[in-house]
Amino acid sequence: MIRSLDELRARLREFTEVRDWSRFHSPKNLSMALIAEAAELVEHFQWRSETESGQLSPEERAAVELEMADVLLYLAQLADRLDVDLLAAAERKMALNEAKYPAASNRGAAPRKPG
Amino acid sequence: MIRSLDELRARLREFTEVRDWSRFHSPKNLSMALIAEAAELVEHFQWRSETESGQLSPEERAAVELEMADVLLYLAQLADRLDVDLLAAAERKMALNEAKYPAASNRGAAPRKPG
Amino acid sequence: MIRSLDELRARLREFTEVRDWSRFHSPKNLSMALIAEAAELVEHFQWRSETESGQLSPEERAAVELEMADVLLYLAQLADRLDVDLLAAAERKMALNEAKYPAASNRGAAPRKPG
Amino acid sequence: MIRSLDELRARLREFTEVRDWSRFHSPKNLSMALIAEAAELVEHFQWRSETESGQLSPEERAAVELEMADVLLYLAQLADRLDVDLLAAAERKMALNEAKYPAASNRGAAPRKPG
Repeated sequence: MIRSLDELRARLREFTEVRDWSRFHSPKNLSMALIAEAAELVEHFQWRSETESGQLSPEERAAVELEMADVLLYLAQLADRLDVDLLAAAERKMALNEAKYPAASNRGAAPRKPG
Repeated sequence: MIRSLDELRARLREFTEVRDWSRFHSPKNLSMALIAEAAELVEHFQWRSETESGQLSPEERAAVELEMADVLLYLAQLADRLDVDLLAAAERKMALNEAKYPAASNRGAAPRKPG
Repeated sequence: MIRSLDELRARLREFTEVRDWSRFHSPKNLSMALIAEAAELVEHFQWRSETESGQLSPEERAAVELEMADVLLYLAQLADRLDVDLLAAAERKMALNEAKYPAASNRGAAPRKPG
Repeated sequence: MIRSLDELRARLREFTEVRDWSRFHSPKNLSMALIAEAAELVEHFQWRSETESGQLSPEERAAVELEMADVLLYLAQLADRLDVDLLAAAERKMALNEAKYPAASNRGAAPRKPG
């Protein structure tokens, strides 16, 4: 069982090396594969209303979960390739977001989400 | 410190609720935000060669890390919204990939990566 | 005044050559730039409802028009690079769509758009 | 034969109305469909080198042309929905680019393309 992003990275690295695919996995190419997977996720939702996008049938849900997995697989491979600690980067970004959008001044204030 | 995807999801949920942003976070909208962040990652690499995409200056690298964080933040929020276990989904997807691309038959065989 | 896609292609070719940017414009790179611009379009709509996405202020509308222009600029440059007749390709694709989704059987039938 | 973007828009409008699909075609949704098609274009190039991306087999080339057509079809539908003159917007954007990147100062100067 994969219990952490670190384990996922190690599993993906082995998967890639055994197939001799490392030579295809430049950061440039991985970013392309990542956005292609993100688009497959978007495709599931493009003709649904916002409400319907939260009401997936079991089959649709299973498909959406695999698209989300694909995004994570390429993000983890990019992180491995560039040696990025994803959770640490996420924490840094959240701190920036907290400074940019202070809680008090935003609550209920905006009819529209900023950014 | 954020030590797991579960902790990240909890932190993001609180961040969103305090700002009253949950109403904007339909799966549809989150998938749009996710791909917009994926595109900012792509932008860093679009005019670089594959080799250059692995040779980032410290400033570029810090920016790329934050773009990767943004992708993870929206993926984690989507997972939270749809109640998806990302690592379990990743494991399911990896099993499918292992069945689809057996190691032996692929090694060094293809001049081009399939898929 | 630019009156056709052919004129647009010619103008873009000159713009690129004068700046010695042709060497950056591989189809691979142009596809990345194109999707990055498509994402900036998506960003305008991600926190709006479907209804709101049709109700743009004059400023927002001007910005959206320029994002749409950016998509067209890269699509036209890719067409120029690969020597693709965009209108002819669009006509071929429309014929395929007409065969795939016959009008009679689809009208009012589906609660959800297929594809 | 479709000879202009205006004709393409008219053909698409009819195609959509006959199928009763207008109700799905909010600008928000069309922007999602557009980026999903842009991603299918990216997918063709993600594991190819820049050089290979310009060396398509006849089959690959035909497929790429149809993906490019799909991007144009959604861009034209969005233009129709928002009543945007795409060529006029492209001309405005080109004027902005010419001001932003003057020819003389850029020629051969940059080892990397700006922007």
